[in-house]
Amino acid sequence: MKVHGKPTRTLWLEPDGQAVGIIDQTRLPHAFVTARLTTLDEAAHAIRAMQVRGAPLIGATAAYGVWLALRADASDAALARALAVLGDTRPTAINLHWALDEMRRLLAPLAVSERVAAAQRRAAELCDEDVAINRALGGHGLKLLEAAWERKGKRGRLEVLTHCNAGWLATVDWGTALSPVYLAHDAGLPVHVWVDETRPRNQGASLTAWELGQHGVPHTVIADNVGGHLMQHGRVDLCIVGTDRTTAHGDVANKIGTYLKALAARDNGVPFYVALPSPTIDWSLRDGVKEIPIEQRDGTEVSDITGRLSSGDIATVRVTPQGSPTANYGFDVTPARLVTALITERGVCAASEEGLRSLFPERARRHA
Amino acid sequence: MKVHGKPTRTLWLEPDGQAVGIIDQTRLPHAFVTARLTTLDEAAHAIRAMQVRGAPLIGATAAYGVWLALRADASDAALARALAVLGDTRPTAINLHWALDEMRRLLAPLAVSERVAAAQRRAAELCDEDVAINRALGGHGLKLLEAAWERKGKRGRLEVLTHCNAGWLATVDWGTALSPVYLAHDAGLPVHVWVDETRPRNQGASLTAWELGQHGVPHTVIADNVGGHLMQHGRVDLCIVGTDRTTAHGDVANKIGTYLKALAARDNGVPFYVALPSPTIDWSLRDGVKEIPIEQRDGTEVSDITGRLSSGDIATVRVTPQGSPTANYGFDVTPARLVTALITERGVCAASEEGLRSLFPERARRHA
Repeated sequence: MKVHGKPTRTLWLEPDGQAVGIIDQTRLPHAFVTARLTTLDEAAHAIRAMQVRGAPLIGATAAYGVWLALRADASDAALARALAVLGDTRPTAINLHWALDEMRRLLAPLAVSERVAAAQRRAAELCDEDVAINRALGGHGLKLLEAAWERKGKRGRLEVLTHCNAGWLATVDWGTALSPVYLAHDAGLPVHVWVDETRPRNQGASLTAWELGQHGVPHTVIADNVGGHLMQHGRVDLCIVGTDRTTAHGDVANKIGTYLKALAARDNGVPFYVALPSPTIDWSLRDGVKEIPIEQRDGTEVSDITGRLSSGDIATVRVTPQGSPTANYGFDVTPARLVTALITERGVCAASEEGLRSLFPERARRHA
Repeated sequence: MKVHGKPTRTLWLEPDGQAVGIIDQTRLPHAFVTARLTTLDEAAHAIRAMQVRGAPLIGATAAYGVWLALRADASDAALARALAVLGDTRPTAINLHWALDEMRRLLAPLAVSERVAAAQRRAAELCDEDVAINRALGGHGLKLLEAAWERKGKRGRLEVLTHCNAGWLATVDWGTALSPVYLAHDAGLPVHVWVDETRPRNQGASLTAWELGQHGVPHTVIADNVGGHLMQHGRVDLCIVGTDRTTAHGDVANKIGTYLKALAARDNGVPFYVALPSPTIDWSLRDGVKEIPIEQRDGTEVSDITGRLSSGDIATVRVTPQGSPTANYGFDVTPARLVTALITERGVCAASEEGLRSLFPERARRHA
């Protein structure tokens, strides 16, 4: 999508072919800064420090990270080490492991001399595939938004609520949850997005608001506490969120707090959609609440908040009293029973084993 | 309760008898600062700027505010003006109007010369009544906590989740939701409190964490998004919150986001209690979602966050991008069907017309 009017991806091969370029998302929304990754460690750091984040983008960065590692040493040991280091950066995102498995399967059988070129080619392909998947997913989601707009009698605005950032910044381009929103906006639907700020890292307030603003999509940032109230008062026509991992039965792990919005949507008869590229599906899992590991992050993300001072400088302030502990769970699991439908690159389906199997019979079978 | 080991109320008559002392709660948790209110305008400002907040404390401050106004001018016009100015400070808290009605009923029939002394006496009584109510309420709530501890087989910790600040800082002393918690802690129950940070004003992270820490009650600050996840995993034994206004049918207006926690509690079979002094009941209302006016506050409370820099200075940082609008709803309404029970100074009852009528027959009758 566009940044300052110029089409941009979140990840690219640098023009000199020697490095991977990324948007340093930790600097958004106050500064648009890019970074150059040249080594395995830099790629792993970029994922761990959340310079890149969002399940699809993490996967793409990890694929390029393998390439960066092999450029320095393409041996079996180095490949194994790269896969281990990158696999260890974030525990919840299934795309990370999916992308690394892809790279392993391709590269392990190859001669050492062939690995670097093959790794670069496959990483680039994975990026292009992500873009194509998200665009396709957006098309299917657009139909749901158009139907909601019809149901509403085409009056006022089409009110969408989203949590965290599942926009183009979370992918290579287009986004997952926001891909249908961009398509709807471009098609002339008067869409307005309620943006949950998404504590503790504020990805909604900082990233989703920024990318919607850059594209000109009307939006309003709200505290995470507000969505239920808006739904009680008919101010939300539908919710769309992304997911970091979806089980074969349709349970959805996504940013902490997603479950609360799904409960409110159910209580108020508001459709709750989850947009997911199929690599996000973990066919090996059934019960998401019991089986999906939930990342615990540093408690200072809760106690300390970073933003822009009126001087323009970036500063971090502590909100909690000295001596008060904090806990920081990164994700929660929304049970399939609360999800109205899943939006994938192959179409829309029920959040259930049957639904997913109907769209992805060959993958479901492989894991049966 | 205690501050730095010394028993303290949130509001007091200054030793010289010429002013009302308050804790400036906007300075917590980083500095313990008191302020001296000497005029109507200072009292109104203290409420509006949330130097004092919490429904019971707002009511008590407003009562003293009437006294401060009458000291300058005890005429009928001045009394009417004081009631109007104070009544206009915060739209949702019913205690405010309850306290002002009390003052009006007492003072309007009196001779002008008698009003100042009578106003001071009644304001002091209202404060003492608030303390007595909260202590009684705490005793009834303590039984629920003891029962939960028994049910748990007295293993581990008794895990309580609370939202916003309904502690002693929200009242004159003891608190509402936290009164049972303080009594349980003092009685030796190993209670631990999950403290929702309570965006956008962070009353949990700043006030609840501070007062629990001062009293030595174990607690952990979490983002508002986390409670559902904790409940899914059996990490919350019960929720207790306060309320700013409760309808005659048991619907509960409380800090924005309370409704989401009540939904999660219901979905996971966790008891959800609301602690309320009876002045918080609005006997004239039935359907809280439709009838309770919800305050909209300045959007900068969402976009800008204040805290302590590592230098010790207090600073405000902006989290949202330039040009992104914010919306700021202060409260939401939790329907009675999601409330396990109401805890009042007269005992525990169902969140229903029948429940409230059984405890307060004389007041229910007055509004029938």
